[in-house]
Amino acid sequence: MTTVLKLGGSVITDKNDPETVAEETLRRAASLLAEEEDIVLVHGGGSFGHHHAAEYGVSTTDGTGDTEAIRIIHGAMHRLNTAVVDALAEAGSPAFPIHPLSAASRDADGELSLPTDQISRMNREGFVPVLHGDVVVHEGAGATILSGDELVVALATALDADRVGVCSAVPGVYDADKNVIDHIDTFDDVADALGESEATDVTGGMAAKVRELLALDAPAYIFDIDGLDAFLADKNPGTRID
Amino acid sequence: MTTVLKLGGSVITDKNDPETVAEETLRRAASLLAEEEDIVLVHGGGSFGHHHAAEYGVSTTDGTGDTEAIRIIHGAMHRLNTAVVDALAEAGSPAFPIHPLSAASRDADGELSLPTDQISRMNREGFVPVLHGDVVVHEGAGATILSGDELVVALATALDADRVGVCSAVPGVYDADKNVIDHIDTFDDVADALGESEATDVTGGMAAKVRELLALDAPAYIFDIDGLDAFLADKNPGTRID
Repeated sequence: MTTVLKLGGSVITDKNDPETVAEETLRRAASLLAEEEDIVLVHGGGSFGHHHAAEYGVSTTDGTGDTEAIRIIHGAMHRLNTAVVDALAEAGSPAFPIHPLSAASRDADGELSLPTDQISRMNREGFVPVLHGDVVVHEGAGATILSGDELVVALATALDADRVGVCSAVPGVYDADKNVIDHIDTFDDVADALGESEATDVTGGMAAKVRELLALDAPAYIFDIDGLDAFLADKNPGTRID
Repeated sequence: MTTVLKLGGSVITDKNDPETVAEETLRRAASLLAEEEDIVLVHGGGSFGHHHAAEYGVSTTDGTGDTEAIRIIHGAMHRLNTAVVDALAEAGSPAFPIHPLSAASRDADGELSLPTDQISRMNREGFVPVLHGDVVVHEGAGATILSGDELVVALATALDADRVGVCSAVPGVYDADKNVIDHIDTFDDVADALGESEATDVTGGMAAKVRELLALDAPAYIFDIDGLDAFLADKNPGTRID
């Protein structure tokens, strides 16, 4: 019974203030997650990753060979990951960092190679791996962004996850009247209602999230921090996508 | 033409003084390595890793499920790796960290799973991956030590390396009269002369190094920091093992 849960960058950071952790929300999430096992955590970049990536023109497809740019983007995401893992550890979670730059890469077609032996073994030993959006080496392109959303999809698939959660800045996917949609089973139903997120996000907005989550075997949920408790209790907060 | 080079923990740290980098030697090594490509670097633990591992009773075979112990050992090795990567970057090397805890693991028999797509792709993109001795998750045992020496052997094998270097605290393997042996081709020739290293080393001394290097296809060299320049110039410093 493996769960993959993403804590959105806009949840755990102040997305409009460079490299600022949303301390109170992070502590709240960590406290809810303290006793969880059989869970793989992923977090996004928020104000740590996105503006650096945008500044250097690096995206999931546009690479860079500029080693300083790679170091700056990775360094910022690494600092955020340390804050997240430290908050979890302080709450009592057996959390350990997994830095994608150390493990993952892309081939010349952009296809992701993400080894997961270490991740599933951590879970089986009672540990909680915590991955994050990062730069990864990309054959022929230097390095490109591996987003938290892409990680969620890749992990859910590779680990054959039973449930996927995306804890986001919004309580679910909104319809055209700003009401949370309870259930999405095809993209066409919501195509008109979905815009893009407002702040800089090199890794795509809600439309891309929904498309990727629809492609998964496991049911996925999009909810905000107020829905995290219900998600962890196997309830159905926010929008269910499957 | 891939080279795997280990910078011994006793070379880049003061092995008897906890968590102290040998700044001058590290800068010297970084300056010699600044222009190198097609090289995979590994460093040992020295005074950062070994005493923590010993304190918590963790070795390459004795594991721990104590998350604090794992965090302390990994954290110390991570700090040393950051010092090494920073020194290399400052010298102009396109060096990036690879943290084994993020990528590698052991199965229940202790067999190492070490994915190397990301490592060979870094090399092909002109980057220099820098790995380090670390704790890694170990099925059924929590986490155990993955030593720099084991990494060298695993990387040389997986990457089909052409040359292997071990930059050590001594200028080569000594015979019974403390003269450096020029060439070792069987362990029996040197079994009597090989002792263990003096300071705490949970990951084995010179005898284990020689045994493991003999098992490689590639020629391996053991030398000290004064031999690093010659090794990088394709000469034969210290002791050649093959």
